[in-house]
Amino acid sequence: MAYQKREIQIYEHHVKYYETDQMAIVHHSNYIRWMEEARMDFMEQMGFSYKQMEEVGIISPVLAVACEYRNMVHFQDTVQIRTTVAAYNGIKLKIGYEMYNKETGELTTIGTSSHCFLVDGKPVSLKRSYPDIDEIFLAYLEPHRLETK
Amino acid sequence: MAYQKREIQIYEHHVKYYETDQMAIVHHSNYIRWMEEARMDFMEQMGFSYKQMEEVGIISPVLAVACEYRNMVHFQDTVQIRTTVAAYNGIKLKIGYEMYNKETGELTTIGTSSHCFLVDGKPVSLKRSYPDIDEIFLAYLEPHRLETK
Amino acid sequence: MAYQKREIQIYEHHVKYYETDQMAIVHHSNYIRWMEEARMDFMEQMGFSYKQMEEVGIISPVLAVACEYRNMVHFQDTVQIRTTVAAYNGIKLKIGYEMYNKETGELTTIGTSSHCFLVDGKPVSLKRSYPDIDEIFLAYLEPHRLETK
Amino acid sequence: MAYQKREIQIYEHHVKYYETDQMAIVHHSNYIRWMEEARMDFMEQMGFSYKQMEEVGIISPVLAVACEYRNMVHFQDTVQIRTTVAAYNGIKLKIGYEMYNKETGELTTIGTSSHCFLVDGKPVSLKRSYPDIDEIFLAYLEPHRLETK
Repeated sequence: MAYQKREIQIYEHHVKYYETDQMAIVHHSNYIRWMEEARMDFMEQMGFSYKQMEEVGIISPVLAVACEYRNMVHFQDTVQIRTTVAAYNGIKLKIGYEMYNKETGELTTIGTSSHCFLVDGKPVSLKRSYPDIDEIFLAYLEPHRLETK
Repeated sequence: MAYQKREIQIYEHHVKYYETDQMAIVHHSNYIRWMEEARMDFMEQMGFSYKQMEEVGIISPVLAVACEYRNMVHFQDTVQIRTTVAAYNGIKLKIGYEMYNKETGELTTIGTSSHCFLVDGKPVSLKRSYPDIDEIFLAYLEPHRLETK
Repeated sequence: MAYQKREIQIYEHHVKYYETDQMAIVHHSNYIRWMEEARMDFMEQMGFSYKQMEEVGIISPVLAVACEYRNMVHFQDTVQIRTTVAAYNGIKLKIGYEMYNKETGELTTIGTSSHCFLVDGKPVSLKRSYPDIDEIFLAYLEPHRLETK
Repeated sequence: MAYQKREIQIYEHHVKYYETDQMAIVHHSNYIRWMEEARMDFMEQMGFSYKQMEEVGIISPVLAVACEYRNMVHFQDTVQIRTTVAAYNGIKLKIGYEMYNKETGELTTIGTSSHCFLVDGKPVSLKRSYPDIDEIFLAYLEPHRLETK
């Protein structure tokens, strides 16, 4: 039976005091953590959560991250994170993130994270070995969405 | 053969930018992390490192922490942490920490952390089951050192 | 006009992957951060937010924290944090926290944080100088609630 | 008087327990923090520390970061970080980082961070306005060193 693409609710992160630094803005390392939060929420909404993935025996390490900081984020701002499948070929997955200030609508940050899939420590093609999961990631592919430099 | 108590070098932590918050001081949660750093360095210097403990099959979870903030610490300060065995009865261990500003000598922070010992998930008495390890902790006991309220 | 005590909604924290450590549980330093989250949410619900406090010119540094870990918390658990005014005399404030596993109802953690109030860097009595704010904290005082050792 | 390029000592970071996650490796967000540590150490060794920069009235926000994870890093590993000026044109600065496992010599991680310079919140050309500082960054330029994808 074919996978039915779902409507994804935008992920929200409410900025904590401990995420600020002495410039009185959010420390830039935290956005990498928010990308992880948003990615795991995205997978859960897709119907294939990180926990389910681990139960199947698949591990998906982070190969690379990139992040561009366009506008500053402050304590108690709410950030809305739009998550997409920016690239996917069955073997490698690139997730894209756009972060917006909820109140102003301003684009604050864009980022990507790249992942592969391992079973018993060895790279695996979801396309070949897990076609059901492959289908899910394909359903959310939006290749031309992000324009990181 | 009896354990020979060693001279313990004071542990130093150089404060990082990402440890500050928007009050332009170190965020108070980081001191709990420095206590862990200092504790693991202390155990390594004692000759019974955290890694050795895990290899023996002992896990030592944190049961409680307490921390009093007396003077503020800032970016690029170096904090010297004096670690002691504040209480120990073979079953429970309380480690004490005194943090000093290296430049001024000022006492900035005092803390404690309490631990038990588990083997296969069950509490164990080091005194009974691991007398060699028990002897090590006893050698550093300084019960009246810290006066936390 | 007298302050009307409000119904406080329990604060919820959804555990993030990056909050775990290699014991596969939440690292114990994160609970200190959650206490801060819960405290700021509590103040906002009381009608006297941290931001309002800063605008009035009052700073409320953390003097001490204490935390007891009773049951472990894992990735993707939701923790419910019940926040109370554990002690308050106009000059010093002690906030109490009880954390529960939302799914099981189990008490996982209890903690406290102690604070004073500074205006222009000097200690101030809310009772004398800010009776309106004093009244708010008094309204939530539950002195016998927590039994930390 | 012309700036004399100095010999830069490689920066070392000793991995902490609280930097691990439940995969029993270092959480990927921490490398972004280590890049900051290494960058600030590098600037201090160059003879133009972050503190001096702030005293001159220059702020240097992070515009972007990128990081590739090639080999995993574990608790108690020591990471050696080689920092270089990967690109610099007087207005924008790109710092490059190569991280090596001290024990094995293995390349574990490569990264970059991009920065501009602000005075009173406005972009400034170091080349034009601060030729002495400009000269320092130029002295460490190694443009073809890093090959991030």
